[in-house]
Amino acid sequence: MKLKARLLDLQAGGRSIAILDDETAGLLGVHSSDRVRITYKKNETIAIVNIAGNFPRNYVGLYEEISRKLGMKTGEDVEVQPAERPEGLSHVQAKIRGERLRENEIEMIVQDVIERHLSDTELASFVTALYIHGINMDEVEALSKAMVETGSTVTFDKGPILDKHSIGGIPGDKVSILIVPIIAAAGWVIPKTSSRAVTSPAGTADRVETLCPVNLTIKEIKEVVKKTNGCIVWGGALELAPADDIFIQVEYPLAIDPLLLPSIMSKKKAMGATHVVIDIPTGRGAKIKTNGEAHALAYDFIDLGKRLGINVQCAVTFGEQPLGYAIGPALEAREALSTIMGKGPVDLREKATSIAGMLFEMVGIENGKQKAEGLLESGKAERKLREIIEAQGGGPTIKPEDIAVGDKKADITTEKEGRVLWINNKSIARVAREAGAPKEKGAGVILKIKLGEHIDKGGVLFEVYAERNTKLEAAIDLANKLQPLRLSKKPEERMLMDQIPTRTIYKKIFTLER
Amino acid sequence: MKLKARLLDLQAGGRSIAILDDETAGLLGVHSSDRVRITYKKNETIAIVNIAGNFPRNYVGLYEEISRKLGMKTGEDVEVQPAERPEGLSHVQAKIRGERLRENEIEMIVQDVIERHLSDTELASFVTALYIHGINMDEVEALSKAMVETGSTVTFDKGPILDKHSIGGIPGDKVSILIVPIIAAAGWVIPKTSSRAVTSPAGTADRVETLCPVNLTIKEIKEVVKKTNGCIVWGGALELAPADDIFIQVEYPLAIDPLLLPSIMSKKKAMGATHVVIDIPTGRGAKIKTNGEAHALAYDFIDLGKRLGINVQCAVTFGEQPLGYAIGPALEAREALSTIMGKGPVDLREKATSIAGMLFEMVGIENGKQKAEGLLESGKAERKLREIIEAQGGGPTIKPEDIAVGDKKADITTEKEGRVLWINNKSIARVAREAGAPKEKGAGVILKIKLGEHIDKGGVLFEVYAERNTKLEAAIDLANKLQPLRLSKKPEERMLMDQIPTRTIYKKIFTLER
Repeated sequence: MKLKARLLDLQAGGRSIAILDDETAGLLGVHSSDRVRITYKKNETIAIVNIAGNFPRNYVGLYEEISRKLGMKTGEDVEVQPAERPEGLSHVQAKIRGERLRENEIEMIVQDVIERHLSDTELASFVTALYIHGINMDEVEALSKAMVETGSTVTFDKGPILDKHSIGGIPGDKVSILIVPIIAAAGWVIPKTSSRAVTSPAGTADRVETLCPVNLTIKEIKEVVKKTNGCIVWGGALELAPADDIFIQVEYPLAIDPLLLPSIMSKKKAMGATHVVIDIPTGRGAKIKTNGEAHALAYDFIDLGKRLGINVQCAVTFGEQPLGYAIGPALEAREALSTIMGKGPVDLREKATSIAGMLFEMVGIENGKQKAEGLLESGKAERKLREIIEAQGGGPTIKPEDIAVGDKKADITTEKEGRVLWINNKSIARVAREAGAPKEKGAGVILKIKLGEHIDKGGVLFEVYAERNTKLEAAIDLANKLQPLRLSKKPEERMLMDQIPTRTIYKKIFTLER
Repeated sequence: MKLKARLLDLQAGGRSIAILDDETAGLLGVHSSDRVRITYKKNETIAIVNIAGNFPRNYVGLYEEISRKLGMKTGEDVEVQPAERPEGLSHVQAKIRGERLRENEIEMIVQDVIERHLSDTELASFVTALYIHGINMDEVEALSKAMVETGSTVTFDKGPILDKHSIGGIPGDKVSILIVPIIAAAGWVIPKTSSRAVTSPAGTADRVETLCPVNLTIKEIKEVVKKTNGCIVWGGALELAPADDIFIQVEYPLAIDPLLLPSIMSKKKAMGATHVVIDIPTGRGAKIKTNGEAHALAYDFIDLGKRLGINVQCAVTFGEQPLGYAIGPALEAREALSTIMGKGPVDLREKATSIAGMLFEMVGIENGKQKAEGLLESGKAERKLREIIEAQGGGPTIKPEDIAVGDKKADITTEKEGRVLWINNKSIARVAREAGAPKEKGAGVILKIKLGEHIDKGGVLFEVYAERNTKLEAAIDLANKLQPLRLSKKPEERMLMDQIPTRTIYKKIFTLER
């Protein structure tokens, strides 16, 4: 059927969508969500139909994604025909019914995801079915491989390729800024890609961006790594496992994360990693609550690593409070820089050197942790970080105080004395976000006290930093409402932990930061 | 945050969507799928954020649904703030986790559905979770009630209110055109609302539309029913249980139907029905395959009826082949009109009088089926149908041959002789749709032979009707490919029914027609 194209001068967030009115759709025999094949000159593409009332008859509305694919500059005639549903959709339906998918079926789904032949509705149903029915390791392997194969991959001249990754969930987790230079300073290659915050106050890319550019091309990354052995860059624009980025968009509003394993490991594989430590922060207020859960997940990561040809070890780390004191991109970068310069909190140093030490031992170096500590204390790690900063385009002489933080500041104090019994990770993160993080890089929280420490009446629990007064006030209000720190004289004097029926639901913390 | 509104001059299929660019969204602290509250003068509304690359900074793009709610005619400044996620979403998430939902939680979900506060992604995840985890009868009851309460309801001066409904799945099921006049001719009220085809070749509304208008307002329906005791109208624009219409949009691409019970029963309740027969076509190639399944579903309908104050009985009917011979709106209307005039196929008469008879007995009339047959034979039912046609705005003297059918026609013949052993409902439906049904009302299929009948080599299995040659040819090709009728000399001469591993998957038939 010949229709006039109307170019909508609007993007659809990557989706392949064509607009039809009811009448024209009816004549074509298609409904909303059906597919049409659109042909213009020698180009053709598949689009998902959306029905819009009041749209003119005999027109097809094309979002920019479609007109670009068709190479169309102005509204001309196109041929529009009903198209079959993509084959991947029948496998999505099989998963909804609870069937196990085979490798080639998963490949078809991932291919259809990449080509945007599946709608948000269908993707949402797929990830929901994966979440409810579960995925077995054969499926996880096939998903990981298909996600790698449908994206960019990077190869480096030198091997092995070391890497680390956290499954996320702990505010203030800035260890990568220490681990990468420690490893690189010892002569090993560690091309770290990282993400920006989605649901958390800061991703590693957000933190490092206050030190130097992170938005590098693959070519630039290879140059930086050739020069320095390491990098800490934003992975989001590199098209590594791009199917995963599409899945994450759909998972975000649902707050489910069934693709944790393939999501992380496909990106490591795409970067050519051979030795990887996966950090699994564990405890109340972390994604993973118990040691048992952590071990089960760890064995899945190790198994998946074997299937992908990656040597994986997992670090189960203490996840019941933020790491260090600083939360928010600039505040965290300051703290990381101070720490690599010899100051900084013990837990951050301890965690960074432990994980770096594991990586060293994986490539055959004995006493890895001591080696990592030595590189930190000798100043070699600091020099390496400055090399990397310079290679990525930043100023190598940067001092912690050069990093701009929000100039609006407030103290959150306690009305009673006591000892810190609980710190709610999620509440701290929400306060930092309310203050403007991660978009306003100077916003965030500085804890003045951590678990087990004593505070007097009127003492400062934490400081809130913001770039704007309205955000500061909103963050203070939220802090007073959420009360992220819970005090007690001594644990044994506060035996009643909760009262029922005042239903307190202990949700798994949901962050898409991995 | 003050933003300039850009009115998009485009509808979003009822959805509440606002467009932002990445930067502006970042400053607001929102991501794609988050909500914003948009305020213009004294009006405010919630919209779901879509991020569009290249969209100008400091603008918000508003689809017509939003600008209409805000009463905005030209692009002016609006106040945009991040908004909390709707409360219904947390209950959707509870359902994804497998929790049972309470009445007030379901009410909140349905309210958010109606107000378009839930995205397609979230709705898809919800119906998927309902499909996988199942719904218990308390949830079904709460869903039904909430869907009734959030829509229009109709009351008639006279009671009781009789009705019938089929769960669908059988091509050619035109019994309503007979049952409504039979019941109304006996003086009972039967205000039948019906749907248009979504996945089938004809809905009752499509069939009746070839006899008279079906797109009546509630006021007009009440007048028709006052005059004639019955009506057969399209229910789609009456806003009866509108939440259901939104769910159906999402279920359609997924081909799942977890809301069958509340979907049907909420619409009956909204029309004030007191006595309802639910038709459950059963057998190979129907939605329900076995007697056992049919009984389980029947008891759910009866139970739900009790909870809603509706007296329900179920008819388990033979569903292994199309009803009558005609499939397609105009062809079916012709057949129904012929049948009420005294001719027509036995199975159609038998099914119509059986269900009408059940309704009679439910209101206390003995020998209901005989009564129904009498009304048919005496011509009273025909006169009543013509009264209804006239009251709805059609010509009361219409004859079967006045109903226009497609003038392109082809015979599908058999290359061997034999007896019809199987008729594939779904394949027959697909051929009729390929020929142009339901949009092209004259398109469809006339079976020339049915189950158990004998045919000679070269004999005609069925005829295909179309309004356009291209559609006719496409339908012929599909018919040759699908071969919807399967012949055998005698069943006992063909004992091998299937061969494995040539995987034949017996799918449940999926049609959204109910």
